[in-house]
Amino acid sequence: MRCEVVAIGTELLLGQIIDTNSSWIGEQLAMHGIDSFYQTKVGDNHARIVATIRQALERSEAVICCGGLGPTQDDITRDAIAEIMGVELEFHSDVAEHIRDIFASRGRAMPENNLRQAMVPAGASVIPDQPGTAPGLVCPVGDKVIYAVPGVPYEMHQMMQATILPDLTRRAGFTRVIRSRVLRTWGHSESRLAELLAGRIDELDAIGNPTLAFLASGIEGLKVRITAAGDDEAGAMRLIAEEEPRVRALLGDTVFGIDQQTMESVVLDLLRERGLTLAVAEVTSGGIAAMRLSALDPLGEVFRGGIVPTAGAVRTSLLGVPAEILGTFEAAKTLARAVQRAFGADIGIATTGQHDLGDVSGAAQTYLGLAIGEELAVERVRLPGDRERVRQFSVISALNALRLHLLG
Amino acid sequence: MRCEVVAIGTELLLGQIIDTNSSWIGEQLAMHGIDSFYQTKVGDNHARIVATIRQALERSEAVICCGGLGPTQDDITRDAIAEIMGVELEFHSDVAEHIRDIFASRGRAMPENNLRQAMVPAGASVIPDQPGTAPGLVCPVGDKVIYAVPGVPYEMHQMMQATILPDLTRRAGFTRVIRSRVLRTWGHSESRLAELLAGRIDELDAIGNPTLAFLASGIEGLKVRITAAGDDEAGAMRLIAEEEPRVRALLGDTVFGIDQQTMESVVLDLLRERGLTLAVAEVTSGGIAAMRLSALDPLGEVFRGGIVPTAGAVRTSLLGVPAEILGTFEAAKTLARAVQRAFGADIGIATTGQHDLGDVSGAAQTYLGLAIGEELAVERVRLPGDRERVRQFSVISALNALRLHLLG
Repeated sequence: MRCEVVAIGTELLLGQIIDTNSSWIGEQLAMHGIDSFYQTKVGDNHARIVATIRQALERSEAVICCGGLGPTQDDITRDAIAEIMGVELEFHSDVAEHIRDIFASRGRAMPENNLRQAMVPAGASVIPDQPGTAPGLVCPVGDKVIYAVPGVPYEMHQMMQATILPDLTRRAGFTRVIRSRVLRTWGHSESRLAELLAGRIDELDAIGNPTLAFLASGIEGLKVRITAAGDDEAGAMRLIAEEEPRVRALLGDTVFGIDQQTMESVVLDLLRERGLTLAVAEVTSGGIAAMRLSALDPLGEVFRGGIVPTAGAVRTSLLGVPAEILGTFEAAKTLARAVQRAFGADIGIATTGQHDLGDVSGAAQTYLGLAIGEELAVERVRLPGDRERVRQFSVISALNALRLHLLG
Repeated sequence: MRCEVVAIGTELLLGQIIDTNSSWIGEQLAMHGIDSFYQTKVGDNHARIVATIRQALERSEAVICCGGLGPTQDDITRDAIAEIMGVELEFHSDVAEHIRDIFASRGRAMPENNLRQAMVPAGASVIPDQPGTAPGLVCPVGDKVIYAVPGVPYEMHQMMQATILPDLTRRAGFTRVIRSRVLRTWGHSESRLAELLAGRIDELDAIGNPTLAFLASGIEGLKVRITAAGDDEAGAMRLIAEEEPRVRALLGDTVFGIDQQTMESVVLDLLRERGLTLAVAEVTSGGIAAMRLSALDPLGEVFRGGIVPTAGAVRTSLLGVPAEILGTFEAAKTLARAVQRAFGADIGIATTGQHDLGDVSGAAQTYLGLAIGEELAVERVRLPGDRERVRQFSVISALNALRLHLLG
């Protein structure tokens, strides 16, 4: 089963919008065992859209068209698909009603233009789940199929998950349900992770189900994805539940979370469970930890807040770090303790180091201070990359150090 | 003149990497007056790469291939282009020497694999500018051309700017040099901006050079791009210099910067010129202002630092905001003054509001406090969007309020 993606919109070709939809769809197709060999971007031009979809339909059994379902004259995906199907567009009054309701719920009248969105190629069906004004379409062409989804990511995601992926797997003759879980890790290099998992990956390759895959995720650590097929959802989830502890045993405490969890969400959950509060003093990280923690805990129930003492003199006057030890191991201790006390928190974290004094060489040391109750610890790390990466890494490293401490 | 983009790499189809290169190239082509009607992603498969480039070359006069120039067995762009040209790959000892030097400069020996990168299709020329180990290629095919550039963005950017864009414009018969300047604005809606500029856009359309275009840029405001063609660089820049004041006169003080400038870079420059220092108290924005300002001024010469008093009790104990006025207009004043004093800064900024107490409705007010010397002002704004957008908007709005104040 092959499925191509066609992203439609002149703004994509002009680089005004980056096409993240095709990447997301590609990831979902791969996870569901559907091959995808080409992805094409084409502008809002009828002849070129028709030619592109036709070619995709020659090479593959299914095509997902993304975008061009809006209410304006530029939105011509519906017309192009009708031409390929050799049919006319028909007015669907129930779709029109739905769009009218969406406008009404926002206290607005529906502009006449939006009626274009209720035009559907004859023989196509409307995807039941319609979060926005653009309906998704399933358009049979012989024994092949064209799907049309809007370019608004969350609308597209819902339609993919509720309708298109199940329809594709059914067409592919896959009677099995595919589910996956991502284990998020921090602390191993990609090659070390590969080494640790190589044996298990070989074993699973021999069995064929479940499977393991690696995914890099930028500065947020490495991901290991367990994908399982089952006769039903429960069967797939059972396989994942059986595999997960095996993988965790190989990776140890580098696994900090699963799926959508982040380092800060995990740390905040651990603190909340234990009834502990946190404050941060960020020299190296310059506010990144506060930004991430406050996004998830905006009322400060666990994260009481932070201080960003960028100027050395502020560290001395407000937090009592003697001028002669700025940027050192001892300064990390002093900062962690000072912010813990000033914010009345159970735990204080500090990021400081040689970068803070202007040393941006690869050899520069970063010190991560942890004040936990009466205890005081400093982790000394050498973080790779340019200054922005060092700032980001210092936050994840410091939160991870706290996580490991809380887990004992 | 038409030019297509072919992005090569299975990881792009699998969604492991988002293809931002094609978007960037598309933007550059548009700016230089080169039409681009299709962009295709294809995996690391010889037959499919050859078929994709061949088709692109039938439809267009030029093709830019991005990626697949690395040292591994998966990197087969060179081989695919050689097949299309009907030639063999030849070893270029000068390229090999250059790669060897790059490794030597990092204190490492060149792995044998990297010699693959010195293989060049016969008749192709190597792009002189080679920042990494992958050389870019210019490969003539009859009177058409295939360019190959590495997928590493900064390497690709350099080759595009130094070699490919000039070569394309020369082939297109454009004897004129294209230059542009982006004016960055904050404060007008897109429709208001369109209204203000409509007359001037019509006038310029009649003349044809320079031209004006709008670009949205997410939460960072709207951009207006002036693009000019001249007989030489000086001629193009002269047209831009003549047009810029006209556009600025229409837009007034909503223009906060040009090109790569950001709101925080502009504010830091203004403060530096005037010898003033800044501190921030961020309840609503939770550290975003500190993060952005510290990224540009990591040693705290202008930005002395900030405090993120997420918990209400911290605002009371550390900054003297009475519990009964948390999240109010008066609290913004108190916070701005308190952080100004605590950090010994000339100016204190504060973000606070009804969100801080858990009100996330669209009607929630945000208060931006400004303490400038002895003066004290508060701007009251209603910011649109979800909490994360409100956080981001509050920072840009507060910095913009300070910018306008500094400019009188």
